[in-house]
Amino acid sequence: MDNRKYRQGSFGEPVRSPLKPWEIVKIVGELGGYGVNFHDNDLLPIDASDSEKEAILKDFRKALADYDVQVPMATTNLFGDPIFKDGAFTSNDARVRAYALQKTMNAMDLGAGLGAKTYVFWGGREGTEVDASKDPRDGIKYFRDAIDFLCEYSTEQGYGMKFALEAKPNEPRGDIYFPTTGNYLGFIETLAHPEMVGVNPEVAHETMAGLNFFHAVGQAIEAGKLFHIDLNDQRPGRYDQDFRFGSESFKICFFLVQLLENSGYDGPRHFDAHAYRTEDLDGVKAFAAGCMRTYLILKEKAERWNKDAEIQGLLKEIKVSDPELESLCKGYSSDKARALKARNFDRKGIASKGLQYERLDQLTCEIIYGVR
Amino acid sequence: MDNRKYRQGSFGEPVRSPLKPWEIVKIVGELGGYGVNFHDNDLLPIDASDSEKEAILKDFRKALADYDVQVPMATTNLFGDPIFKDGAFTSNDARVRAYALQKTMNAMDLGAGLGAKTYVFWGGREGTEVDASKDPRDGIKYFRDAIDFLCEYSTEQGYGMKFALEAKPNEPRGDIYFPTTGNYLGFIETLAHPEMVGVNPEVAHETMAGLNFFHAVGQAIEAGKLFHIDLNDQRPGRYDQDFRFGSESFKICFFLVQLLENSGYDGPRHFDAHAYRTEDLDGVKAFAAGCMRTYLILKEKAERWNKDAEIQGLLKEIKVSDPELESLCKGYSSDKARALKARNFDRKGIASKGLQYERLDQLTCEIIYGVR
Amino acid sequence: MDNRKYRQGSFGEPVRSPLKPWEIVKIVGELGGYGVNFHDNDLLPIDASDSEKEAILKDFRKALADYDVQVPMATTNLFGDPIFKDGAFTSNDARVRAYALQKTMNAMDLGAGLGAKTYVFWGGREGTEVDASKDPRDGIKYFRDAIDFLCEYSTEQGYGMKFALEAKPNEPRGDIYFPTTGNYLGFIETLAHPEMVGVNPEVAHETMAGLNFFHAVGQAIEAGKLFHIDLNDQRPGRYDQDFRFGSESFKICFFLVQLLENSGYDGPRHFDAHAYRTEDLDGVKAFAAGCMRTYLILKEKAERWNKDAEIQGLLKEIKVSDPELESLCKGYSSDKARALKARNFDRKGIASKGLQYERLDQLTCEIIYGVR
Amino acid sequence: MDNRKYRQGSFGEPVRSPLKPWEIVKIVGELGGYGVNFHDNDLLPIDASDSEKEAILKDFRKALADYDVQVPMATTNLFGDPIFKDGAFTSNDARVRAYALQKTMNAMDLGAGLGAKTYVFWGGREGTEVDASKDPRDGIKYFRDAIDFLCEYSTEQGYGMKFALEAKPNEPRGDIYFPTTGNYLGFIETLAHPEMVGVNPEVAHETMAGLNFFHAVGQAIEAGKLFHIDLNDQRPGRYDQDFRFGSESFKICFFLVQLLENSGYDGPRHFDAHAYRTEDLDGVKAFAAGCMRTYLILKEKAERWNKDAEIQGLLKEIKVSDPELESLCKGYSSDKARALKARNFDRKGIASKGLQYERLDQLTCEIIYGVR
Repeated sequence: MDNRKYRQGSFGEPVRSPLKPWEIVKIVGELGGYGVNFHDNDLLPIDASDSEKEAILKDFRKALADYDVQVPMATTNLFGDPIFKDGAFTSNDARVRAYALQKTMNAMDLGAGLGAKTYVFWGGREGTEVDASKDPRDGIKYFRDAIDFLCEYSTEQGYGMKFALEAKPNEPRGDIYFPTTGNYLGFIETLAHPEMVGVNPEVAHETMAGLNFFHAVGQAIEAGKLFHIDLNDQRPGRYDQDFRFGSESFKICFFLVQLLENSGYDGPRHFDAHAYRTEDLDGVKAFAAGCMRTYLILKEKAERWNKDAEIQGLLKEIKVSDPELESLCKGYSSDKARALKARNFDRKGIASKGLQYERLDQLTCEIIYGVR
Repeated sequence: MDNRKYRQGSFGEPVRSPLKPWEIVKIVGELGGYGVNFHDNDLLPIDASDSEKEAILKDFRKALADYDVQVPMATTNLFGDPIFKDGAFTSNDARVRAYALQKTMNAMDLGAGLGAKTYVFWGGREGTEVDASKDPRDGIKYFRDAIDFLCEYSTEQGYGMKFALEAKPNEPRGDIYFPTTGNYLGFIETLAHPEMVGVNPEVAHETMAGLNFFHAVGQAIEAGKLFHIDLNDQRPGRYDQDFRFGSESFKICFFLVQLLENSGYDGPRHFDAHAYRTEDLDGVKAFAAGCMRTYLILKEKAERWNKDAEIQGLLKEIKVSDPELESLCKGYSSDKARALKARNFDRKGIASKGLQYERLDQLTCEIIYGVR
Repeated sequence: MDNRKYRQGSFGEPVRSPLKPWEIVKIVGELGGYGVNFHDNDLLPIDASDSEKEAILKDFRKALADYDVQVPMATTNLFGDPIFKDGAFTSNDARVRAYALQKTMNAMDLGAGLGAKTYVFWGGREGTEVDASKDPRDGIKYFRDAIDFLCEYSTEQGYGMKFALEAKPNEPRGDIYFPTTGNYLGFIETLAHPEMVGVNPEVAHETMAGLNFFHAVGQAIEAGKLFHIDLNDQRPGRYDQDFRFGSESFKICFFLVQLLENSGYDGPRHFDAHAYRTEDLDGVKAFAAGCMRTYLILKEKAERWNKDAEIQGLLKEIKVSDPELESLCKGYSSDKARALKARNFDRKGIASKGLQYERLDQLTCEIIYGVR
Repeated sequence: MDNRKYRQGSFGEPVRSPLKPWEIVKIVGELGGYGVNFHDNDLLPIDASDSEKEAILKDFRKALADYDVQVPMATTNLFGDPIFKDGAFTSNDARVRAYALQKTMNAMDLGAGLGAKTYVFWGGREGTEVDASKDPRDGIKYFRDAIDFLCEYSTEQGYGMKFALEAKPNEPRGDIYFPTTGNYLGFIETLAHPEMVGVNPEVAHETMAGLNFFHAVGQAIEAGKLFHIDLNDQRPGRYDQDFRFGSESFKICFFLVQLLENSGYDGPRHFDAHAYRTEDLDGVKAFAAGCMRTYLILKEKAERWNKDAEIQGLLKEIKVSDPELESLCKGYSSDKARALKARNFDRKGIASKGLQYERLDQLTCEIIYGVR
């Protein structure tokens, strides 16, 4: 719901008028979207008076009801205001850290009041350009203190929120702590309440570092930690592009949708993308509709792939089972170790088998290209 | 101790004759190095007969004793032989997975016999070019089964080994599972014996993805998981270069050495680098000496930085303490939450303060440039 | 025709037996391919005796005739042999530069004898890891001397060859001189015979640097310099992957095929790719067939896009003509400058128009996805 | 002189008050800087009235005189205003192209009046996110028309300006035409007045694509086309960082300064960098002083390197001359070709020589580290 970023940018003046929060709800509802999310200050400007806030909220709630739109997730803007120029939870300044905590509690109150069950943390300023300024271990400890505090707050307030941590390698900071989803998976286990905290991977963020987003989401799901997901698109090694979902990484997006659908992931498919700066309001609507449409195109392709006899036949051939060996390899015992060590393997024979991955990949590409 | 890679490479024929294992020990010893490490097949060729193995080992042990060189770490080559062309622990073929386990147990026996206390896993082929071939969740499960098995094996054999997992984003696979140190930190917590398993970050591998290696090592240390480290150098976004330590990333290497020295890390400083393909044996020796010399240069600079009055003064000024707020932010209670929410912050006043990071960074650069 | 690279690689042993040159011709011919190309030493090993060379050539010529396969292009391997470890035409050693010239003249003789009309230069070792070793201006001068010499040689021999220079940013060198197609376009104009020299852009090479390959080829065509093209695929920021054409960069490959077909480019569509290391000979054939099939799929999609009424309607709307202004802007005169400066532009009105690029791109994606 | 960008950015609100143009001149003058440059709208806001413009210019001229600061270069902002959202000279809209020409002529008048002798073109919006929108060949033609027109305009007005084209791979556009300095070197040769047009390479822009900036500048100088240079710093594969010169790429900046000093380049050393967003005005001054100081530090190191006997001795050894061969290789004749082809080379002997580049690079690093 942050409609500022791509209207403006470092290199240019705004090209579109900002939409009022209720207008965004209307657009989403009319396009058949399920929900909207927001940073606290996208809804309520940081300097709004109480009566201004009340008026905005009233219109917003009415629009949610009128257009049957949910607020499944909320989050705090801890990166835009100059007070956060060197971090929020990880600032070197104790006052900034305290203010960030206060701001987040208030934003959680706001989100809970609108029904949000997931709370996302994107630490946009939690990092450095000047590594002389802070030991990264201190940054991590500060961040942990904040999340631990907020878990307890949610519990005590009865909000029943799950927290989802969103990684990004850089921009707006030179380097952001926890640059990949994996870094957060490691961090979560060091928290006081790891069961309350998962991840919110974003296509663009993982792709900026040239990493395989499908693998990252796979690891998150396997660990039971995919609490939310941000869908968009991006070219590797560039500024944060937030392109329309499925408009760049055709193959990765195909596997991603397949994984989300096959795995039983039941959270929101959240499109955290932005229309190109060339667009007017009609273009923004085309953009939003395109995200949803492409997801459904890929979902249909995933089903086709699942049912494709040639592909499934190849997979069956490729996955060589050997129940005896599989039993020896799983669950250690001295006997199993001894048996494994005594075994003779036909190393060269096994190695000589071609794996038919060119054929498998070509068939997959042809499904994506829609010619199969 | 793998001396093949940069003699050869995808694009060229070997330029140097391979060194015998005992010759490598001699060189390291004469240069004043502490230890050598090896992949099993660097020491014992995969097709060597028992008597050949015995002869190699005899010479190798003698050289270790003669030159007072240790074997602090050992590892398995699970990537070179064609049988591993689609992975070892994560292969789709149950026979390959079983063979990889057997090979690793044998290599652990070998390493333990030579005194290795750390065992590194670099899953060079554990990944994909064709994501149609395997659900990444299956790959992760297979990998976990293997590590769980080998932890028990080490314990039962009384080897007392710690395991260190080494991440790499890609090459030789299109995408390697667990592409960053962070991904392994997350994975480790899902193991049966997380206490036995840590990470082995490598400068080049993290840098290939353009990530801040200093931050990665910081997170590993903070989590108590830095069990080993591979020092070399690299430019981002490229093939695995394994350059001489400190020859590219001057600033990151400075902070890295400072962190290793300040944190009390007491494991090996392992230079996992390779001399340029332009070099002969003298060049290889110059290369090895250069790695060690540059580490010591940076260590001296780190001490100078720690004692620099102007830098320390800046840091004191930058880190704003507020004991009352710090106490409110750490360790949740209802009262603390209430007090924090009631607090008035001078948002604009705090934000207006300049942080002097240009000055701090310039002073740091001048220490690295040796002009301060 | 270099079938070594992906059988081997820095991290692994060969997985496939090398094919004899005539066997490659047979495979290409049976798959319906138009031609094969070769580095001199792919055909004739660097140490082959005269009689060995003769025998190989005899078989090779016979296969070309039997399977009706052409040799449209030839090239020299100036990167594999250790003598080239620090460059060929740009080596610091005058003897190496001279040997490279000799080797290339011989390879041109060989290529000409087999009918090659295009001669490609890929300077795989023309670069540095150690910039202290050479002033890049010297490297450029050496390179120019070599190309100028060889242009004259071709002319004098009556070979009628065109030369195509192939850029690559890095690997196997840390940095290769002339890292992009653009760098060669600049260099060509400084040659003695610029009219004889053009470029041979490669998808993977330009993409390694994260650049838009479609734009690079567009500039080459616009300058009349697209003399040859290497088709394959690649993810940005990685080692040289040489994947099957169209298997990664769906959108860029679509626009590329459209441009080649629309522009009247009449040179070879050369697939300079390699099958995955997981494949056996059947996989290699599937790979080669896949390259050709995907090109044709994209060609059909390009035609569909050209005829799509909605897309063409959008384009007509987007491209705002104004004959009077267009005439003022083209071909300077004082009067035109004066008229232009006097003109009032409705800056805000023009700016407010949405450009419908989200819609245009979504329609294009749907053609690529085959759902339109 | 664009002081907006890093105060603001896509993700945050301004942190510093904008400086008036004359205040910037004062700061530069007091720091001992030679000159300032500006985009037209940094000096004169796009919507300023004539009397406002006059007042600003009066203060600005006075400050130039008072603080003895020059305006060696000027440029046009063709990227910030919404009218340029899809390009300026390459827009699909003829009116935008015409307006861009008008705006540039006016800005040239302004620059000439202030003494600027170099005019820089950075086509920040000349590119695409949606390649369906424009054939890159059309974009290039439009761009050529504009530069050809403006060359004539400069000549007719007697401005005597040289034009310098500045490449950037991406940001703010998904892909910018002419992504590297090399692409512009190729383009320039296709202009009506190539002798008037050169390049303005920027450290950050070339480094974003992971390319070797030192090589790019070397090619530009060798071609006689280095008309201006933008000094700053950057990590590869990221958003445009514009860091303080010499604060990241220690080695590349060292070689760059050495090349600029050795080559006789006599244009401005222009620091096109921005202070971190964490800074106040004092930080901005420290930043500007740091850029200049680091340049001088590197210049001193370059002189030291030039005089280092061990380094120069190594270089002498490495550069193997052979006057006879060198003469055979330069300037074609039939006789030379015949003699070269008849020559026997000791391929293996030459190849076996180690090149001592590890030693050379270590010595160079030690000069950069200030320990030699």
